[in-house]
Amino acid sequence: MRLAIDVMGGDQGPHALIEGAARAVIETPGLELILFGPHQQISAELSRLPRPLAAATSRLLVRDVAHSVAATATAAWALRRGQSTSMAQMLRCLAQGDALAGVSVGNTAALVALARRELGMLAGMSRPAISTAIPARGGRRCYLLDLGANVDSPASRLVEFALIGAAMAEQVDGIARPGVALLNVGAESTKGSASVREADRLLRESADSLPFAYLGYAEGGDIFQGELDVIVCDGFAGNAVLKASEGLAGMLVERVQLAFASRPRGRLASWIAKPVLKHLKQELDPVRYNGASLLGLQGIVVKSHGGTRADGFYYAIRRAMQEVEHNLPERLAKRWSFNE
Amino acid sequence: MRLAIDVMGGDQGPHALIEGAARAVIETPGLELILFGPHQQISAELSRLPRPLAAATSRLLVRDVAHSVAATATAAWALRRGQSTSMAQMLRCLAQGDALAGVSVGNTAALVALARRELGMLAGMSRPAISTAIPARGGRRCYLLDLGANVDSPASRLVEFALIGAAMAEQVDGIARPGVALLNVGAESTKGSASVREADRLLRESADSLPFAYLGYAEGGDIFQGELDVIVCDGFAGNAVLKASEGLAGMLVERVQLAFASRPRGRLASWIAKPVLKHLKQELDPVRYNGASLLGLQGIVVKSHGGTRADGFYYAIRRAMQEVEHNLPERLAKRWSFNE
Repeated sequence: MRLAIDVMGGDQGPHALIEGAARAVIETPGLELILFGPHQQISAELSRLPRPLAAATSRLLVRDVAHSVAATATAAWALRRGQSTSMAQMLRCLAQGDALAGVSVGNTAALVALARRELGMLAGMSRPAISTAIPARGGRRCYLLDLGANVDSPASRLVEFALIGAAMAEQVDGIARPGVALLNVGAESTKGSASVREADRLLRESADSLPFAYLGYAEGGDIFQGELDVIVCDGFAGNAVLKASEGLAGMLVERVQLAFASRPRGRLASWIAKPVLKHLKQELDPVRYNGASLLGLQGIVVKSHGGTRADGFYYAIRRAMQEVEHNLPERLAKRWSFNE
Repeated sequence: MRLAIDVMGGDQGPHALIEGAARAVIETPGLELILFGPHQQISAELSRLPRPLAAATSRLLVRDVAHSVAATATAAWALRRGQSTSMAQMLRCLAQGDALAGVSVGNTAALVALARRELGMLAGMSRPAISTAIPARGGRRCYLLDLGANVDSPASRLVEFALIGAAMAEQVDGIARPGVALLNVGAESTKGSASVREADRLLRESADSLPFAYLGYAEGGDIFQGELDVIVCDGFAGNAVLKASEGLAGMLVERVQLAFASRPRGRLASWIAKPVLKHLKQELDPVRYNGASLLGLQGIVVKSHGGTRADGFYYAIRRAMQEVEHNLPERLAKRWSFNE
């Protein structure tokens, strides 16, 4: 399996990304990664890999690209002038069939725009949506989308997100008739922004022919209740909710530890509880959820966080590999055309 | 001190609200509450109050109002036909100076519209914003607004929210020059919805004359970092973030307990840790944060959650009392006119 990796665009340069890529290669026999970025910089990082990872270099190919997309670049800039960037070249490599999936931590707007042009969209989808499965009560998970690829989404796009999210829950998690809801500020039909109310109307109108169960509005807390398979929202709200959840989880784990440390009986509990808390913290560590799929493309692109560390990027690569194994776009496309 | 309480509009009827009101009266000498709703229903609840709370009835006055605002009512309905509801009568009582503050768990859209008409806005504010202080790292707190009073907010309204939020942090928390940011999907100026980018431009243009430090964009995770005093957003995103945070906190506390319970060493830790976790759960219990202020009105109105229990409603009444003690609208108005 060969994947294409854009190593530029991270907050701390390519160091952590290359370490994560090396770890993925070491742990996966037969995996080959093509690294897109400035040759000198990548080579320097490769030569500095710690001993157990150094053996990865034979399966880390380098494609020399001098330019990269700046964090401040717009989608319009990327489309007009970004052809020679590591991100665009990585996507071009995918489009030409030289790799099965791509991963980038770079500028989201540029990645969405370039991926859309280089790979094309599945029939019926106008723009990609970023999605990830959020852990919920009872060991269940809820696909939340969009997480920031689109802001100011019209109703028709929210309906597309509902369809592609439901296809994901069905094809990846094997859920027969996924339960899908629209995120809103309340459960009543009179509430909400104009686009959400219009999307609700569209979904209700075609409820009988939908390949999923449309369950109306959901509120923010429902994401973690474990009763819904897909929650659809504009990328602005989805991004805010996801990042707030990551921030809150970090603060709460810190508070649990502080609470133990600051109480007489807590000190003993803390000593006994350390392994439990460590396990919990790992489970809730945002880097684990860093890889998020760009859904709706004719190809597999995973977006990782710009501030990700080596292990977060490693998980993003693993997510891309899983989507290749699931043969995701083809299965989503089949489901999609079946709908129509 | 006399406050006006709308006991209708709760998900489970007035029972829990009247119990919370009785508790507030018992614990606060000199507090009198006027309860707005159907006389018979309220009297029945009052006669059923448990023994220690029954003594409150002498300071729980009943104002008989037969009608109430339905959860599905629109703001337009409330303005046209809602004059004889418990919510409107409660606000009218405030406007006439018969009570110092009002509390309701009812329909948010109706409450915002009716409060705006009955009480009027502070100079410079076009619509009320719902706000609450979110607990953050290092024992600090961050005012998040709007939490759902307004959806599809234009840029000018976001600027108003920034001003009133900053005035709140300054007047209530004594912060000399509050740090204020706009919620967005990324830190770069090229990102975000049209209204957020326009609000950013307006705030940057007048940065020198602002009574707070405008710090640009914040992301969802910054809410809990303890580095910002105010984060401003449209009510759709704010509502989603707040409700998701409540849901996540509940799930995480449950998971900590489960993690203890399911491990051999964890069982002993759980036994020792019980008081610590109980304390943490209490601190993070969403009902404590249930009371949220309607900012920008010429009067004090606190909105509590429709699904609140007695203790949540008790905290909402306490919040209203604190705002009376802070003489909030007058102090915000002074700060506001000083700005102009």
